[in-house]
Amino acid sequence: MDPRIREHAEIIVEHSTGVQPGDNVVISAPSAAEDLAVALHELVGDRGASPVYLASDSRAQRAYLRAADADGLETPTHTQALYEASDVLIRVRAEHNATEESDVDPATQAAYSKSRKPVQEAALSKRWCLTQYPSSGNAQLAGMSTEAYENFVWDAVNKDWEAQRRHQARMVEILDPADEVRIKSGDTTDVRLSVDGMNTLNDNAEKNLPGGEVFTAPVADSVEGEVLFDMPLYHQGREITDAHLVFEDGEVVEHAAAENEDLLTEVLNTDPGASRLGELGIGMNRDIDRFTYNMLFDEKMGDTVHMAIGRAYDACVGEDREANESAVHVDMIVDMSEDSVIEVDGETVQRNGTFRFEDGFEA
Amino acid sequence: MDPRIREHAEIIVEHSTGVQPGDNVVISAPSAAEDLAVALHELVGDRGASPVYLASDSRAQRAYLRAADADGLETPTHTQALYEASDVLIRVRAEHNATEESDVDPATQAAYSKSRKPVQEAALSKRWCLTQYPSSGNAQLAGMSTEAYENFVWDAVNKDWEAQRRHQARMVEILDPADEVRIKSGDTTDVRLSVDGMNTLNDNAEKNLPGGEVFTAPVADSVEGEVLFDMPLYHQGREITDAHLVFEDGEVVEHAAAENEDLLTEVLNTDPGASRLGELGIGMNRDIDRFTYNMLFDEKMGDTVHMAIGRAYDACVGEDREANESAVHVDMIVDMSEDSVIEVDGETVQRNGTFRFEDGFEA
Repeated sequence: MDPRIREHAEIIVEHSTGVQPGDNVVISAPSAAEDLAVALHELVGDRGASPVYLASDSRAQRAYLRAADADGLETPTHTQALYEASDVLIRVRAEHNATEESDVDPATQAAYSKSRKPVQEAALSKRWCLTQYPSSGNAQLAGMSTEAYENFVWDAVNKDWEAQRRHQARMVEILDPADEVRIKSGDTTDVRLSVDGMNTLNDNAEKNLPGGEVFTAPVADSVEGEVLFDMPLYHQGREITDAHLVFEDGEVVEHAAAENEDLLTEVLNTDPGASRLGELGIGMNRDIDRFTYNMLFDEKMGDTVHMAIGRAYDACVGEDREANESAVHVDMIVDMSEDSVIEVDGETVQRNGTFRFEDGFEA
Repeated sequence: MDPRIREHAEIIVEHSTGVQPGDNVVISAPSAAEDLAVALHELVGDRGASPVYLASDSRAQRAYLRAADADGLETPTHTQALYEASDVLIRVRAEHNATEESDVDPATQAAYSKSRKPVQEAALSKRWCLTQYPSSGNAQLAGMSTEAYENFVWDAVNKDWEAQRRHQARMVEILDPADEVRIKSGDTTDVRLSVDGMNTLNDNAEKNLPGGEVFTAPVADSVEGEVLFDMPLYHQGREITDAHLVFEDGEVVEHAAAENEDLLTEVLNTDPGASRLGELGIGMNRDIDRFTYNMLFDEKMGDTVHMAIGRAYDACVGEDREANESAVHVDMIVDMSEDSVIEVDGETVQRNGTFRFEDGFEA
């Protein structure tokens, strides 16, 4: 077994979820990630915890959803009982074929998600970690060889997370007490928003592995200006490119895209909160140095910022602030590596991807 | 997908477990049986039931058990909660490597089984079915090519079970009201036992797929004579050949084996019940025409009888009879195809594998 698999498992069990003796642990992993599941079982056994291994197989899931009646879907109370009786949930993504569920009716998918809401709530109330195993299907989605993708994933995941936390903490110190943030990139992006009274969080690879972002929620009606999201957006199996949004009083008043603009329109029209921002994030994991059509990685890419239209994370919203509510949360990314600047309360804190607390920064 | 896989799934869902709308179903299947798991998910969805898919992976299980402290194993209460909230359990066996757990300490295995007793009880209280997918590892264990093993498994499994039930019912009619059974084969087997007051069951592929046996429990102290079990016995990864037992007043008073006699001795010494018979079974599935080192098949082989030392099945034991109790239940098989006879209350009911209710029977 590749030693990086054991290292990955060690980070999940030790750093991300802190498995303790007596813990009931759910390991959910498709067969493409069997090696990581085996390594996780070894560590769970070593720590005196009890594993149960869910197959999370997308071929089986597709077969079930295509056969099921969307109107008849009920909450799977046995799965709910399993999660409620658990302490730790480890969910590993890995596909042999990343488009396995492409011929499932989206309405059935939506009804299925809705029927599982109590299951999801049970899961999110536990210590949990979502991670990725470098399988062939995900490598293909990224347009990479499997070996290159393995290197990419394990470089991004198997890090000194304490050092990364300290690196990110310097940005949290700037953003958390701030009022106004301005993001400029080329001629196409110049947006101002307030984060006054909001909380800035340091994503240190606990619930998401890899971690590597610093994120907060904008004050909902404070966003003014325009953004060209020059990294692709992969949503419901379709790619939206060069999404362009114009904000007034926090709301999207104009939008366009080079490809699949209709899908962007559909997302923005989901509900009132879907045309406002719910998140501002700064990607700070420099081992993620390319876009791989996988938001678990893409949003943490070094030298990027991302903004999500839709739902804000409760933990980001200050006590006397209102959270933007929506059924959607769609992240979109801006490359900040060239001709770009992040200003906080009028001071430049990043230019062309280099932070002011780093060598080489030019004010 | 091989159409025989869908047929196999149909028998499990329709005949063996009768999946209904709203049922919570656990499908436990290793990755080697993924195709069957996919077919099962489709049928479960079609019937308006909810699946959860357990990986039951022997590599992960081995890794967990080798790392775990045998003295510290606790009941996995999350798995127990899952089973308790379920209606139907489908367990598929299939190995890439049938000796995957060969380097797990048997003491840890035993402690693990003990810790899971409440889980097992929860499982057995539901509608359940144990079956086999024809994987490469099980083919290898049988000494067969994978394709030949596929033919073997699906011939044995994908049958007209109503016709098979009627065939077996003729033997139940003979055995259920009987008193004495005598089994003779060559010069080496001549044993008499009483089944007076015991119940004879017709295994029609519900809990075991394939099914194909008629079985009961001997009156524990009634067994007299000797038996040479001329089919191999595969126990704890070792093969006991030509096990020879001599019974007096129901107890084994002499024993020998050509290979691994020490293992046979160990089994017989487990507890007092381990040196008495707990089961007499008549194999009646003629599509099982060879020994494959898999008791799920071997004990149902046509033209055989089997006897198990150890625990009797409660359902076989009449109300005013005592069940033989033991921690073990080890089946051993006698080939009845040549120079053999089964007598019931002094009348010949099978000679050289042919029952008296079949063409070609010679009294």
